[in-house]
Amino acid sequence: MNTRRPKIAVLNAPGAGPWPGLDPLSAEADVIHGGDEASLAPALGDAEIVVVTDIRTKLLRALWPRAKALRWIHATSAGVDAIMFPELETSDVLVTNARGLFDCAIAESVVGMILAFAKDLRTTFELQGARRWRHRETESVRGQNLLVVGAGSIGRQIGRYGQGIGLAATGVARRARDGDPDLGRIHPADDLPALLPEADWVAVAAPLTRHTRGLFDREAFRRMKPGARLINVGRGPIVNTEDLCGALDHGEIAGAALDVFEEEPLPDTHPLWTRRDVILTAHMAGDFVGWRQALSDQFIRLYRQWSAGQTPSNIVDKPDVAT
Amino acid sequence: MNTRRPKIAVLNAPGAGPWPGLDPLSAEADVIHGGDEASLAPALGDAEIVVVTDIRTKLLRALWPRAKALRWIHATSAGVDAIMFPELETSDVLVTNARGLFDCAIAESVVGMILAFAKDLRTTFELQGARRWRHRETESVRGQNLLVVGAGSIGRQIGRYGQGIGLAATGVARRARDGDPDLGRIHPADDLPALLPEADWVAVAAPLTRHTRGLFDREAFRRMKPGARLINVGRGPIVNTEDLCGALDHGEIAGAALDVFEEEPLPDTHPLWTRRDVILTAHMAGDFVGWRQALSDQFIRLYRQWSAGQTPSNIVDKPDVAT
Repeated sequence: MNTRRPKIAVLNAPGAGPWPGLDPLSAEADVIHGGDEASLAPALGDAEIVVVTDIRTKLLRALWPRAKALRWIHATSAGVDAIMFPELETSDVLVTNARGLFDCAIAESVVGMILAFAKDLRTTFELQGARRWRHRETESVRGQNLLVVGAGSIGRQIGRYGQGIGLAATGVARRARDGDPDLGRIHPADDLPALLPEADWVAVAAPLTRHTRGLFDREAFRRMKPGARLINVGRGPIVNTEDLCGALDHGEIAGAALDVFEEEPLPDTHPLWTRRDVILTAHMAGDFVGWRQALSDQFIRLYRQWSAGQTPSNIVDKPDVAT
Repeated sequence: MNTRRPKIAVLNAPGAGPWPGLDPLSAEADVIHGGDEASLAPALGDAEIVVVTDIRTKLLRALWPRAKALRWIHATSAGVDAIMFPELETSDVLVTNARGLFDCAIAESVVGMILAFAKDLRTTFELQGARRWRHRETESVRGQNLLVVGAGSIGRQIGRYGQGIGLAATGVARRARDGDPDLGRIHPADDLPALLPEADWVAVAAPLTRHTRGLFDREAFRRMKPGARLINVGRGPIVNTEDLCGALDHGEIAGAALDVFEEEPLPDTHPLWTRRDVILTAHMAGDFVGWRQALSDQFIRLYRQWSAGQTPSNIVDKPDVAT
């Protein structure tokens, strides 16, 4: 029986207060919450585990030299790009993420955006606001092609739901593979330029890595169909925003639904806000009602594995995600 | 070889002009378009076929005594309620409809409305208009219950797409049956009161008949979940609008997406227009880009069957749809 009381430091967003739902651990571990250096620095000296709930934090890197006891970092997000730095990459510290938790909600958001464009819901709400009855013809997506960039659990769920509403889905990822039940053939990244001209919908659900940063640039947009729409639920810097605006201006693509941005929050002066061919949301595609509790429950499951001497699930391959 | 030139009268909406796409028939039949009594009355005297493209027409009934040669009425709609009258019901004249043509587009519209509510797209568009970055938690529909009222080809497609995005779909229809691939068990109409309390989403895709008129009334809404939303893509009079407004006012249900109404167009003074818990569209859920041409192509296929001495597909069971 494990009688140690490991110390868990929870790195929250500044001013956000303690992350909820971790109370069940207090019987077996010391859980210390903090959002700034003053509150976290002392805890990090002997914390074996750090839970990062603020994916934009720079504190972990700043306090790294103190973290002598650290064995495991858990991120309550799918993407871990923002917390990675070279010393962590080359260390033995385990990194786990919230894999699986956001899949369905994000896939629902992507399908919602596809249908918002196809059924022109922006105009629907405007006409309703003006009390105007106007019959319109809208698009059917039946048989259209959905290209999913990134074939992790989120990308595959997007493929599944896309096929569920009659789209033909295919995927592209760093590692090609055949016979995926949701995406069929998953093409290697090098095939992206050849796949883009066929896609009516391109959904980006890839991690931000050195391979994906700036993947959607002027050249990529030029290869897309004039009627195509881009949906980004991955990471902002995968899409070059300036090139996207240019592609929309020049009719190289027809629209974009963006949940993530190179700069977040998107500055209120940014030209994206006023485009009718763009739908914007505030990095929330996966954040279903109850997500915080679900993330805590997931971490507690991983902690129990670790506490029992097992390797926790959801290990991130650090070289894979290096940016 | 059939050398007759049958006469086909096409009954269009007043002032709408000729229905497009029927030119291929001109080599083998006389196709006469009309939108009022003056243009149609002479043609109806010896027309064997009437194609009704204006589902709200009263002309067919008015001119019925003249239609001595009539053998077949084709409606370019899924619902034929508005063209039925007792003399037609009891006659030997065949009635066919546009079965199958609108299934996918309507199912896409229903799923789009479900996700518009779940992801709160109204607020998404409003925040974008105000250039406001605001993170929100939205609903996940995963595992929620979708009850489809009406298990014809449209209802079944709604069930298929609903399951395709993670909903648990079930159906209710006049005739119960088991083992439907899309809806599982299809419950008999009498089970509706027992099914309503379980449903998170209720999609109405039934024909308007004497059995469905007013089906959603005060009593039905009282049985629904406070969080449930009603989606009507069937016919307006299946839902009692006044009772619906009352149910929304009293929190008996949480919202409604309506494509059809007791009175169409919905009067611009109607209180439904200004409700944030209601999404309105102008009887267009199935009208995908290219629908008119697709309807003509479908009629031409049925005409070729008829012309070859076969019974055309898509025969409507007249007693079933009597209102």
